[in-house]
Amino acid sequence: MRKKILTVVPMSDTYKEKLEGIAKDCDITYSSYEDVNREMVQEANIIIGNVPAWMIGMSGRLELLQLNSSGTDAYMGVNILNRKTILTSATGAYGKAVGEHMFAMLLSIQKKLHVYRDNQNRCDWSDEGQVLSLTGNKVLIAGVGNIGLSFARMMKAFDSHIIGIKRRIGECPEGVDELHTMEELDDLLPKADVVLSILPNTPATRNVFGRQQFKKMKKSAIFMNAGRGNAVNTEDLCNALIAGDIYAAGLEVTDPEPLPQEHRLWNIKNAVITPHVSGDFHLPQTLDFIADIAVENVRRYLNGEELCHVVDFQTGYCK
Amino acid sequence: MRKKILTVVPMSDTYKEKLEGIAKDCDITYSSYEDVNREMVQEANIIIGNVPAWMIGMSGRLELLQLNSSGTDAYMGVNILNRKTILTSATGAYGKAVGEHMFAMLLSIQKKLHVYRDNQNRCDWSDEGQVLSLTGNKVLIAGVGNIGLSFARMMKAFDSHIIGIKRRIGECPEGVDELHTMEELDDLLPKADVVLSILPNTPATRNVFGRQQFKKMKKSAIFMNAGRGNAVNTEDLCNALIAGDIYAAGLEVTDPEPLPQEHRLWNIKNAVITPHVSGDFHLPQTLDFIADIAVENVRRYLNGEELCHVVDFQTGYCK
Repeated sequence: MRKKILTVVPMSDTYKEKLEGIAKDCDITYSSYEDVNREMVQEANIIIGNVPAWMIGMSGRLELLQLNSSGTDAYMGVNILNRKTILTSATGAYGKAVGEHMFAMLLSIQKKLHVYRDNQNRCDWSDEGQVLSLTGNKVLIAGVGNIGLSFARMMKAFDSHIIGIKRRIGECPEGVDELHTMEELDDLLPKADVVLSILPNTPATRNVFGRQQFKKMKKSAIFMNAGRGNAVNTEDLCNALIAGDIYAAGLEVTDPEPLPQEHRLWNIKNAVITPHVSGDFHLPQTLDFIADIAVENVRRYLNGEELCHVVDFQTGYCK
Repeated sequence: MRKKILTVVPMSDTYKEKLEGIAKDCDITYSSYEDVNREMVQEANIIIGNVPAWMIGMSGRLELLQLNSSGTDAYMGVNILNRKTILTSATGAYGKAVGEHMFAMLLSIQKKLHVYRDNQNRCDWSDEGQVLSLTGNKVLIAGVGNIGLSFARMMKAFDSHIIGIKRRIGECPEGVDELHTMEELDDLLPKADVVLSILPNTPATRNVFGRQQFKKMKKSAIFMNAGRGNAVNTEDLCNALIAGDIYAAGLEVTDPEPLPQEHRLWNIKNAVITPHVSGDFHLPQTLDFIADIAVENVRRYLNGEELCHVVDFQTGYCK
């Protein structure tokens, strides 16, 4: 029987041709995030892109769900994926986009550009004094996957010392100066000028950064989060920022999300918030990176080869 | 007769020792920008630091004025410096500080962080859509001195193509891909994703960037100014930003300065303004860079050697 492929990721013609080339015996439906419906999802054997989880509802036909996201938590709940379905993520596609965003956010905080923007909005020509240098920083990255390595490479161009933290110790990746495990986090925090969390949403990563961790950081430290909001205890972070336990925070993700209008975090001056926008498809190249991963994984699946970025349902990470 | 040296630059002990070592036969007075007075200035043979121009008033005793600034315009007027006084600038000391500031400003604009900051101040979790990449930009730098080269080196780490403009054509400096003269400016503008002016305040550089130049730029171009405000026609820039002739502007300097409270530039959303703060001593290392230049120039002067960074009164540039 011909397999049915459904894609909701907006692919360029180049990637459509590639997909059609490797899936000649399949029926391909090009849909979109807006137009996709439950029927289309229920019929598909292979889906490319983050369709709403409720549309899947344990579909027995679904063999492979290739997400367009790096995060997988929306599909890890009960009654979503059939046990036979293989889930693969697009981890890697966002390294450039998210890495660049966090790098820009860090530099902006180091140069107090958020403070100067507030001043500008009051037509206020005030000098805000000393700034931090981009060079020679000790950077602690909790979760050195693709995004962390992209960020690390940029920081390396500015003579940073990169301390990486991974779940499992392994070979130290290029661009990382020392590699540690999560158990050592508290001992490493006092050394860092910049702490970047790229931890995903898993039972093991909830509230990793709380009161104790912020107390251990330098008063001049900048804390950043580009992973999942709930790796951080938001109330503890607010308190640390207000008390001056840390210098500032650059948050691309928050907990809860979206951040409610009345949340006090919005108004903490040394918190810089962007609303979980660094990934998505806001950097045009990202779409091609995703299509690249998806087409290759579909090709491998159809040929019975081993897939890339297969998600482990136990941990929520890629295997 | 023992020469009198007056310094208003706050030097570290290391540099005080160095100065005392090379000026054993001189009387050294350490003062400050706040405490210096006309009498001290009038008595000095050598001054280190930007004392108020009116205090100099053609002093016949002043042999060498070593500025702590890169800009020299405040001392180029009539009735300030005696014809015999040698004026030297601290060009070079600000390359790191100003280069880093402009780099951070550019990245912040590319990632719309100024727009997200405005949103944050309204507790608004809105997605602002596409952003620009840090990589692969064509960068036009008008005035490739020390600051321009510092900026160029950072951009090169992000695969930029650097087009430099200098007054006089010479050897193409490392980090610059092609070097041109000011006459070619209008032909080069349509190629650039980023245009950075680091032009000083001289008769030849006033209003170099006006209506015509902004029209020639890409609609996606980001214009930046880290030189002197009056290299730009501010009204023309405001019009270009409002009309969307260019994407945004990052302005570390303005004309006039300080920008009056009622000036419309403050409220133009795609203008990002910082109040001429990137130089100064806001990056702690800058003070050492200045002291380094100053002590070396005083040493050379006392030994009858050729000085560095001597300012040409005809052009306002270093010779």
